[in-house]
Amino acid sequence: MQLSTRNQLKGTIKEIKKGPVSTEVIIDVSAPAEVVASITTGSADSMGLKVGEDVTALVKASSVMIMK
Amino acid sequence: MQLSTRNQLKGTIKEIKKGPVSTEVIIDVSAPAEVVASITTGSADSMGLKVGEDVTALVKASSVMIMK
Amino acid sequence: MQLSTRNQLKGTIKEIKKGPVSTEVIIDVSAPAEVVASITTGSADSMGLKVGEDVTALVKASSVMIMK
Amino acid sequence: MQLSTRNQLKGTIKEIKKGPVSTEVIIDVSAPAEVVASITTGSADSMGLKVGEDVTALVKASSVMIMK
Amino acid sequence: MQLSTRNQLKGTIKEIKKGPVSTEVIIDVSAPAEVVASITTGSADSMGLKVGEDVTALVKASSVMIMK
Amino acid sequence: MQLSTRNQLKGTIKEIKKGPVSTEVIIDVSAPAEVVASITTGSADSMGLKVGEDVTALVKASSVMIMK
Repeated sequence: MQLSTRNQLKGTIKEIKKGPVSTEVIIDVSAPAEVVASITTGSADSMGLKVGEDVTALVKASSVMIMK
Repeated sequence: MQLSTRNQLKGTIKEIKKGPVSTEVIIDVSAPAEVVASITTGSADSMGLKVGEDVTALVKASSVMIMK
Repeated sequence: MQLSTRNQLKGTIKEIKKGPVSTEVIIDVSAPAEVVASITTGSADSMGLKVGEDVTALVKASSVMIMK
Repeated sequence: MQLSTRNQLKGTIKEIKKGPVSTEVIIDVSAPAEVVASITTGSADSMGLKVGEDVTALVKASSVMIMK
Repeated sequence: MQLSTRNQLKGTIKEIKKGPVSTEVIIDVSAPAEVVASITTGSADSMGLKVGEDVTALVKASSVMIMK
Repeated sequence: MQLSTRNQLKGTIKEIKKGPVSTEVIIDVSAPAEVVASITTGSADSMGLKVGEDVTALVKASSVMIMK
């Protein structure tokens, strides 16, 4: 089975909070991983991003899918 | 400055591939992190998710924002 | 292998258009399927959604992941 | 009225589950449809996607908008 | 025609940048609007959000759909 | 601090509705702003988008992040 998303962060479920419709799952991700971001070239240029630079990848909880 | 997303994965830019409109940024994330996923309760129940279970968090590249 | 997304639309690749960073994949989906939408309760109320009603599910191309 | 999303899946509401903030709507989609996915070229290449191949389109419930 | 998204920002196209697969559209939004955000309660609590507070709504370009 | 998203809509919190897992935040956005949309070139062509044209930018509540 192959998935088109290369952002596959392995970890262990630390906490589960269930609501009537939505559920929050908190995962401890310890293994190093590669995160691929696709942003507009306009943003990349205005930020002046360079290889070797320290950055933070931000992801909304509602964009995270879970596989097991 | 505070952000509503708690998924903040720190790392270093490893590769940048620029297109006319989109740019792909590959980030080496080594520091352990907590990843919060918000899924439907229906999914959580049908998967039978439990604390302590090993899972993989999947995120599309187009959902990843960059901060520096 | 289980996925937290229940929206799994089976089909056949009809066309692939490659760019330097993004690729568009057009898939013919013929099999009937169940599509789950998670919207705000405010929206559901203001639209007055009812079981049995005909509606259209809208999904941005950038939100579609591919599995094979 | 025109929309920039070409993924327009017609169906009938089968079930509605309301929470205080989020609501889940399950839609029976029977009509054949074309689904357009936009993924990174890196993913398309590593998956070796080809026209005529059987694949599954995955979409998170939180990415589905409803029109009526 | 009704849409489940209440975030409908009216404006005028200022610039269009076309790539082989993706296109960037820049829209001048002048009319005041209401923006609805759905975030995790965990985030809302940790940010201590209150009515009357000045905040900024952040949206990725890939999450914006266009209607005309 | 720089963010890769250029869609930064400044406003004031008008209402907060808390659920067990999700929270809805309604923000009055009055200041004029520039909204950048990234759509497929196929969509842009089929809609025949032109500079100077009046359009509406649509954004799902679950795609809106909050900064303060």
